[in-house]
Amino acid sequence: MAQKKPLVSIIMGSESDKEIAMKAVEVLDSNNIPHEVRVLSAHRNSKDLEKYISEAKSEIFIAIAGLAAHLPGFIASRTEKPVIGVPVSSNLGGLDALLSIVQMPSGVPVACVGIDNARNAAFLALRILKLAGY
Amino acid sequence: MAQKKPLVSIIMGSESDKEIAMKAVEVLDSNNIPHEVRVLSAHRNSKDLEKYISEAKSEIFIAIAGLAAHLPGFIASRTEKPVIGVPVSSNLGGLDALLSIVQMPSGVPVACVGIDNARNAAFLALRILKLAGY
Amino acid sequence: MAQKKPLVSIIMGSESDKEIAMKAVEVLDSNNIPHEVRVLSAHRNSKDLEKYISEAKSEIFIAIAGLAAHLPGFIASRTEKPVIGVPVSSNLGGLDALLSIVQMPSGVPVACVGIDNARNAAFLALRILKLAGY
Amino acid sequence: MAQKKPLVSIIMGSESDKEIAMKAVEVLDSNNIPHEVRVLSAHRNSKDLEKYISEAKSEIFIAIAGLAAHLPGFIASRTEKPVIGVPVSSNLGGLDALLSIVQMPSGVPVACVGIDNARNAAFLALRILKLAGY
Amino acid sequence: MAQKKPLVSIIMGSESDKEIAMKAVEVLDSNNIPHEVRVLSAHRNSKDLEKYISEAKSEIFIAIAGLAAHLPGFIASRTEKPVIGVPVSSNLGGLDALLSIVQMPSGVPVACVGIDNARNAAFLALRILKLAGY
Amino acid sequence: MAQKKPLVSIIMGSESDKEIAMKAVEVLDSNNIPHEVRVLSAHRNSKDLEKYISEAKSEIFIAIAGLAAHLPGFIASRTEKPVIGVPVSSNLGGLDALLSIVQMPSGVPVACVGIDNARNAAFLALRILKLAGY
Amino acid sequence: MAQKKPLVSIIMGSESDKEIAMKAVEVLDSNNIPHEVRVLSAHRNSKDLEKYISEAKSEIFIAIAGLAAHLPGFIASRTEKPVIGVPVSSNLGGLDALLSIVQMPSGVPVACVGIDNARNAAFLALRILKLAGY
Amino acid sequence: MAQKKPLVSIIMGSESDKEIAMKAVEVLDSNNIPHEVRVLSAHRNSKDLEKYISEAKSEIFIAIAGLAAHLPGFIASRTEKPVIGVPVSSNLGGLDALLSIVQMPSGVPVACVGIDNARNAAFLALRILKLAGY
Repeated sequence: MAQKKPLVSIIMGSESDKEIAMKAVEVLDSNNIPHEVRVLSAHRNSKDLEKYISEAKSEIFIAIAGLAAHLPGFIASRTEKPVIGVPVSSNLGGLDALLSIVQMPSGVPVACVGIDNARNAAFLALRILKLAGY
Repeated sequence: MAQKKPLVSIIMGSESDKEIAMKAVEVLDSNNIPHEVRVLSAHRNSKDLEKYISEAKSEIFIAIAGLAAHLPGFIASRTEKPVIGVPVSSNLGGLDALLSIVQMPSGVPVACVGIDNARNAAFLALRILKLAGY
Repeated sequence: MAQKKPLVSIIMGSESDKEIAMKAVEVLDSNNIPHEVRVLSAHRNSKDLEKYISEAKSEIFIAIAGLAAHLPGFIASRTEKPVIGVPVSSNLGGLDALLSIVQMPSGVPVACVGIDNARNAAFLALRILKLAGY
Repeated sequence: MAQKKPLVSIIMGSESDKEIAMKAVEVLDSNNIPHEVRVLSAHRNSKDLEKYISEAKSEIFIAIAGLAAHLPGFIASRTEKPVIGVPVSSNLGGLDALLSIVQMPSGVPVACVGIDNARNAAFLALRILKLAGY
Repeated sequence: MAQKKPLVSIIMGSESDKEIAMKAVEVLDSNNIPHEVRVLSAHRNSKDLEKYISEAKSEIFIAIAGLAAHLPGFIASRTEKPVIGVPVSSNLGGLDALLSIVQMPSGVPVACVGIDNARNAAFLALRILKLAGY
Repeated sequence: MAQKKPLVSIIMGSESDKEIAMKAVEVLDSNNIPHEVRVLSAHRNSKDLEKYISEAKSEIFIAIAGLAAHLPGFIASRTEKPVIGVPVSSNLGGLDALLSIVQMPSGVPVACVGIDNARNAAFLALRILKLAGY
Repeated sequence: MAQKKPLVSIIMGSESDKEIAMKAVEVLDSNNIPHEVRVLSAHRNSKDLEKYISEAKSEIFIAIAGLAAHLPGFIASRTEKPVIGVPVSSNLGGLDALLSIVQMPSGVPVACVGIDNARNAAFLALRILKLAGY
Repeated sequence: MAQKKPLVSIIMGSESDKEIAMKAVEVLDSNNIPHEVRVLSAHRNSKDLEKYISEAKSEIFIAIAGLAAHLPGFIASRTEKPVIGVPVSSNLGGLDALLSIVQMPSGVPVACVGIDNARNAAFLALRILKLAGY
């Protein structure tokens, strides 16, 4: 049986974000949205990440990262597709990741959702995919 | 000549947000995206706002609000379409509006962009519309 | 024996706020103030919430919510009765809920009390009820 | 002609809060609510303030203060009537006054409204007075 | 044997601050500074507190409080003696108590030390007492 | 006529803090407290500062500094006399200087007053001097 | 006359950071350190930026950026040379840029200096260059 | 066998920072960089610290401190060598230490890395040492 094309790429900056990422996976799974999950850091695997972004068949990126969370903005600057960012909490309660994701410069938008709230990233993806007829 | 159907509704919570809202309008205009602009408060015109949301033909909502900025979340809870929120700065530099917009509960996502950055709301709308084939 | 009319409605945005809500219940109970408790989200049950607000016999609303805590403001925009808001703490220590509740726009006031401090919401209700002759 | 009994006492901690206080006055005036205005600091005029609180005929106190804004809590600990606090902004955007007003200990509630938002203090007073039959 | 006159009064706003207060006691004890400890809230025992302040024989007050920590400022407004304030941490990491203590209006100074750092309050008292010849 | 011994040393970290420092000078002058004023940075003139501290005849130090305001703590670690710190506001509203001054480690206390509030530093010095019999 | 090889590359994320960047230039000029200045955004000119980084002859990078300031981290992930980051202030006083620069993940360090303090970035570069024998 | 000259001095302000310091040690060890570790407080051992700084043979200082973290700035004002600061988290999530380290005045730069992130301090040291030919 043919594998369905993934519609959403879930990328986390670090293995330690896995628990958060799984919350997005659950929402997509229960809505039958094909997706794929990758661990790719904007800082430590930038070449692999760029390659993945340019070759990905999916329509939307969900990027999950903590601290100086550059991952969503990195992706947004290398694709024209919608990018959804999920800030992950650490010492400062996630304020660092939130600001690093949401305060993007004009022209390179990231759709930021709440701290640790990967479920809302998936729900936002569902809205966008529905609008696009999926 | 027939009026084109608006694709984006730009709603601001208060007349005082007009200058910010115009930045989204400029981006949409220069990309030939039909849109309409309304001043409707989630708190002071909730009935009119609900009516507008339910009747709007547009595909995406951009909601611009300051302080306890409930407008984007209000809209997101009354439509299945994507909602983009723009926090407006005041005494606390916009931190109040940012948190009021981005920290939505699971199931009712808002795509938050940077403080006062209505241009990015429009650019995000462009990405979503492109994905939807517009 | 006839049930006494509730004087205070305690509404929480989520089941997870129950422990906080019970602190308000205790204060009202020990002061013999009839009340009723509901779980109704401004975002997920807005229609039920509106119905409840319009039909409620109680004189004061206590609204308990975390994150982007729109519940108190939502109620305040749909009733002329006093609304007391209780911010619930999470990742950011409750700063998000506090600002979402207290920074309401002019004309739609919410009486905000301290983070997780539902007891004070009840004590404030007692003061208002006493003034009203209850 | 007999002077009407004031229903609301507006107390500011410092002459410099006058501009903010006048916003509450305007709302009360336009709703025909008798009121009186005093400048009394919890720290510099505590005896006069205590005397005023114990003798005041009004039903509600609106207390306006900046920095370590103890005025509303001071009043709340010396009266059983409802006390509404208005934080005034300065160097930290009003965050200091907001926390000093809203984070009251259990048993001594203050109804806090938004930073510099004395209009909402007045609107909240109107709701309480209406409930009390005024 | 005659009891020595206490040189330092340690006042905490709540029984729950006891563990913090004991850190000041230890430092004073190990430096042979006579002191006395009281639990007196600025909001819940203001009369007792005023009485205590006016009758206290000690030369310095150390006031320990959390949340909207008015206790140090309250004491400072009722005595001409030096008052040292210790902010106690809770939901917001102690930022609320810190600002409530340190941001006093001109003319009513409080000597604020670090969050939960009652030891430094005692060390500061030692410096002042030494200057005064004790 | 003999010059009176200074009782208070006012040290600012930078010439740009002069306006703030003058507020302390005014209070001391109007209370006839002899004092001297120096511009000495903990970072740029540490040797001169150490020399000044060790030779100063004054009984109390008031240290005024912004940003990473180490000046008060530096002085406190080199003298046994009381040190009062005044945080000066800049980009972050003075939060940086406040935390750099107040959060001193146990054993090296600084008496911190409000942001830009050099007047209160002087008033606190007056209380301490009075206790010491000046 | 031969052009000297630049030792420091100053990169700003936007033309609007020019005034800040000039402060670093002044310090380097007055210390006779050859340098070159570029305007290259991590988000809008990532290809040009990568090319510049890989070809640059300079030994140290100073990266100046505001908002979600990814520029320093971007450079640090593409070179083994030391990277110094300067956060630029905007609505939130520079807290967003500070956290976006300093909170880098392990393995990709950025040397962050104070908000808007490009002079210190240059002084830090001087220390590093001196150690390297320049 | 002769002991190799240490290239990096790791100084922590308190024994309680040891766990953080060890993260830097691990990175240096696994890269064969000779180093030495000291516990020296800028406030409690300033003379010993000054002596150590002036006699140290190492080329770079890594300074680890929490609260009002003056240690890195203290070292930077007494050496011309590069100084790397590591903020340690406590009540305020490390925001106090971060601001105390990064907001240094012009002329005395500290290279600040992320909160509790001593590994990045070591990685930054490696970059600087490599540039210097080690």
